[in-house]
Amino acid sequence: MTRELYELRGAEPDLLFSPYCWRVRLALLHKGLEFVSRPVRFTDKEALAFSGQKLVPVLREDDRVVHDSLAIFRYLDEAYPQRPLLGDPSAYQRAKVIERLTFMSMRMPLLKLLVPRVHAVIDPADRDYFRRTREQAFGQTLEAFADPSGGTQRFREALEPLEKLLAEQPYLDGEAAGGVDYLVVGLLLWAWCLGAQPWEEASAVGAWFRRLLAWYEQGQGPIKRAAL
Amino acid sequence: MTRELYELRGAEPDLLFSPYCWRVRLALLHKGLEFVSRPVRFTDKEALAFSGQKLVPVLREDDRVVHDSLAIFRYLDEAYPQRPLLGDPSAYQRAKVIERLTFMSMRMPLLKLLVPRVHAVIDPADRDYFRRTREQAFGQTLEAFADPSGGTQRFREALEPLEKLLAEQPYLDGEAAGGVDYLVVGLLLWAWCLGAQPWEEASAVGAWFRRLLAWYEQGQGPIKRAAL
Repeated sequence: MTRELYELRGAEPDLLFSPYCWRVRLALLHKGLEFVSRPVRFTDKEALAFSGQKLVPVLREDDRVVHDSLAIFRYLDEAYPQRPLLGDPSAYQRAKVIERLTFMSMRMPLLKLLVPRVHAVIDPADRDYFRRTREQAFGQTLEAFADPSGGTQRFREALEPLEKLLAEQPYLDGEAAGGVDYLVVGLLLWAWCLGAQPWEEASAVGAWFRRLLAWYEQGQGPIKRAAL
Repeated sequence: MTRELYELRGAEPDLLFSPYCWRVRLALLHKGLEFVSRPVRFTDKEALAFSGQKLVPVLREDDRVVHDSLAIFRYLDEAYPQRPLLGDPSAYQRAKVIERLTFMSMRMPLLKLLVPRVHAVIDPADRDYFRRTREQAFGQTLEAFADPSGGTQRFREALEPLEKLLAEQPYLDGEAAGGVDYLVVGLLLWAWCLGAQPWEEASAVGAWFRRLLAWYEQGQGPIKRAAL
């Protein structure tokens, strides 16, 4: 059986920055599952046609195809029950609530910081598509939308509740890293791979990030970062 | 055995508005446990001396004494395992994360709206204490701190992730209400009992609040609201 992860790539195929794809990479390492990376560009629609939709990440195990990071976590727990990511229905429901709360408080501040960086690292063939779709979504030009310092400040505010928790325990899921850690740290890895670090190094969040990064890199080798 | 809940009261003893005390009332109803209310004023320190600290809620079952809403939830799950509030360790960890995320995004906006109302409904003997301690915490007068319209707007922004979730499922904990619902709705009941409703009636959050309110009032009778 071949396990393939379709994930977003930059101009360099090994520059992977999608927060949702990072979640799945961490989840696969958590389960101890090997996979083959299939990096796709923003405009590589054809590469994902088999999945019946257009968004990464897509996990494919022969003829089993799952997309959406949370759905992939659920699938992995069903197919590989060892070391649960989401856990029982009650724990799963709560992971979903945390995913929504953190996504909605962190995504927009990070976009304000990262949009120019994404535009810089993607394949030149993707740039028109990226600009057109994002400018339509934001209702303004990428340049007008971008606000790295304001985004960084709002992102740090959004981290405050996590900072307090992580000062008391090593992981969001408690004594060991779990699905909620991967759902949230995927957002930080998005910034990290694009050469940014909008959190304080000397903080509980910074130490948590370093722990997860060290674990991941020990298992999968160094993460490529854009030189921006 | 007598089960007593020490909870914050207004000038009228049956006006209960503390969000943390509301959490525990809902949790006790969820477990089907009867209790005797012991309403205490802000400056009734003596009434809580037996608990070794000064904050409500305090749950007392003969010589077993527990304070802090989340600790009370844990105690109730240990002592009365039927209908878990927090669940297994993984589900508990996630409830704690949600409590921190929602508390930190909602408490300050609600304070901006509710501080003048709290000052209005508390016993006149408590007012100097309330003003002095809050003005010290806020670094400004109650009047300068208060911002009902700004607070309402920021509170509604903080509700947005919950609005999307509750449009898809009846409760934050899924198909049935659970500990996370009570932890969060306690904050809304704080506003409700002080005569405010800073969320849209015609919204998924509004419907969720009404469901929980109807369930509570069916079990425990009408909730007293301040006429403000």
